[in-house]
Amino acid sequence: MCDACLIENIKSSMLSRRSLFTGAAATTAAVVAAGLTTAKPALAQAAGRVVDLTHAYDGAFPTFDGNPGILYEPAVKFEGNGYQLWKLTIFEHTGTHIDAPLHFSADGTSVADLAPEQLICPLCIIDVTAKAAEDPNAMVEPADIEAWVSANGAIPAGSCVAMNSGWGAKVASPDFRNTADGKLAFPGFSKAATDMLAGLDVASIGVDTLSLDPGNSADFAVHFSWLPGGRFGIENLANLDQLPATGATIFIGAPKHKTGTGGPARIMAVV
Amino acid sequence: MCDACLIENIKSSMLSRRSLFTGAAATTAAVVAAGLTTAKPALAQAAGRVVDLTHAYDGAFPTFDGNPGILYEPAVKFEGNGYQLWKLTIFEHTGTHIDAPLHFSADGTSVADLAPEQLICPLCIIDVTAKAAEDPNAMVEPADIEAWVSANGAIPAGSCVAMNSGWGAKVASPDFRNTADGKLAFPGFSKAATDMLAGLDVASIGVDTLSLDPGNSADFAVHFSWLPGGRFGIENLANLDQLPATGATIFIGAPKHKTGTGGPARIMAVV
Repeated sequence: MCDACLIENIKSSMLSRRSLFTGAAATTAAVVAAGLTTAKPALAQAAGRVVDLTHAYDGAFPTFDGNPGILYEPAVKFEGNGYQLWKLTIFEHTGTHIDAPLHFSADGTSVADLAPEQLICPLCIIDVTAKAAEDPNAMVEPADIEAWVSANGAIPAGSCVAMNSGWGAKVASPDFRNTADGKLAFPGFSKAATDMLAGLDVASIGVDTLSLDPGNSADFAVHFSWLPGGRFGIENLANLDQLPATGATIFIGAPKHKTGTGGPARIMAVV
Repeated sequence: MCDACLIENIKSSMLSRRSLFTGAAATTAAVVAAGLTTAKPALAQAAGRVVDLTHAYDGAFPTFDGNPGILYEPAVKFEGNGYQLWKLTIFEHTGTHIDAPLHFSADGTSVADLAPEQLICPLCIIDVTAKAAEDPNAMVEPADIEAWVSANGAIPAGSCVAMNSGWGAKVASPDFRNTADGKLAFPGFSKAATDMLAGLDVASIGVDTLSLDPGNSADFAVHFSWLPGGRFGIENLANLDQLPATGATIFIGAPKHKTGTGGPARIMAVV
């Protein structure tokens, strides 16, 4: 339903206020005549769809340091109360989550202060599954961005650019952290690539792995340059393979706790 | 930028795959000729806008029981490390947050299992500011829904229906909990109203107050009927006065921790 609703809403937003209200009045008259009927869900009529880019998570979800990222303690139990809720202990950088500029800067933008206009934006997906299958520490390089633009057109300013390395499908396996050699091994961005994206005024980058930098990074060059530059990142994205390289709009449901350096987020896309 | 992107994306989704790809190829050729140029941000060209319906929150944010809903503890300090993050203790029903069916049922749907299609949907806003100014425990009644439909047309199935009582503007004041008489006093929904909304197949209800039920509720009738019925709620919404009664699309960024009864969410609207 949602996508068709978006279609209708966007159509409305493109009308002048006057014509919108005139149209609404006519619609209202017809609806009132029909009584309190339920409008037909519109999704069935639409070509679009919603894709959830968020992994469900609990204490077993893989983390960078290998420790549980969330702990549960009952705050109110259902039995005897008729309702229930959890007291949660959450390390901010757990699950599908945001890295705010403040994560890697002393006084950068907190997750609560990200501009809402950066949280609903075009999503550009760079597929590096082929080279990631050959090299687990493969990186998105400038050449990958150039190839993407050649195939798909310019990257709109304010976009989110996400790496699809195929890692999202490994999330329930030890292959996600991939420490068989004693060190983390998974794909990420190269600093040369994120420098290029900064020059294109991209607002955020996303990865389907545990870190913006590849698993074998010794210097966290992307974290230490991209985030202090006032831009943000998203880690552990899911289902990127269900979207086209371009054409989707991403909704980045960043948490809004004050002074947050990031946190578990709800990320979805409409295409 | 975002709304115009939505416009373009939705237009694309309405094209056939064949015509979409044909168009993309033509666009690509032009862009490649122009090199790695940044596309002009589209928001400036759009009539639409993003409205953030989420309050920023910390331990001072008002809660139903009066206790802090979030506690912060440094997990990694910036000094000496070059990065930082918090260990957070969060009681699920804090800030702008979701009440999942599991909050008031033994085995209802958890917040992680809400259907993504219910999280991006039309937003219908019922304004009860006038009667809430007279009676702090005012309720959305069936007559308010009927009046809304008369003025705005049918409520689409799968919508989110939100109460704007004017309470959002009080959030930094003791008037938000409003316990001058020793008891909580703020507006909410009546059970008769939410029964009517359930009959219209509304997916969720939202309030700009601390509870779906009014502050003086003795029986939490809405919580005990709406949530076990498999529908969800949103509490402490912000900025509803910045949106029209109808025509906005809400993005409900519900958290996705497994077995969650709800939790702090990022809620935004596009109109």
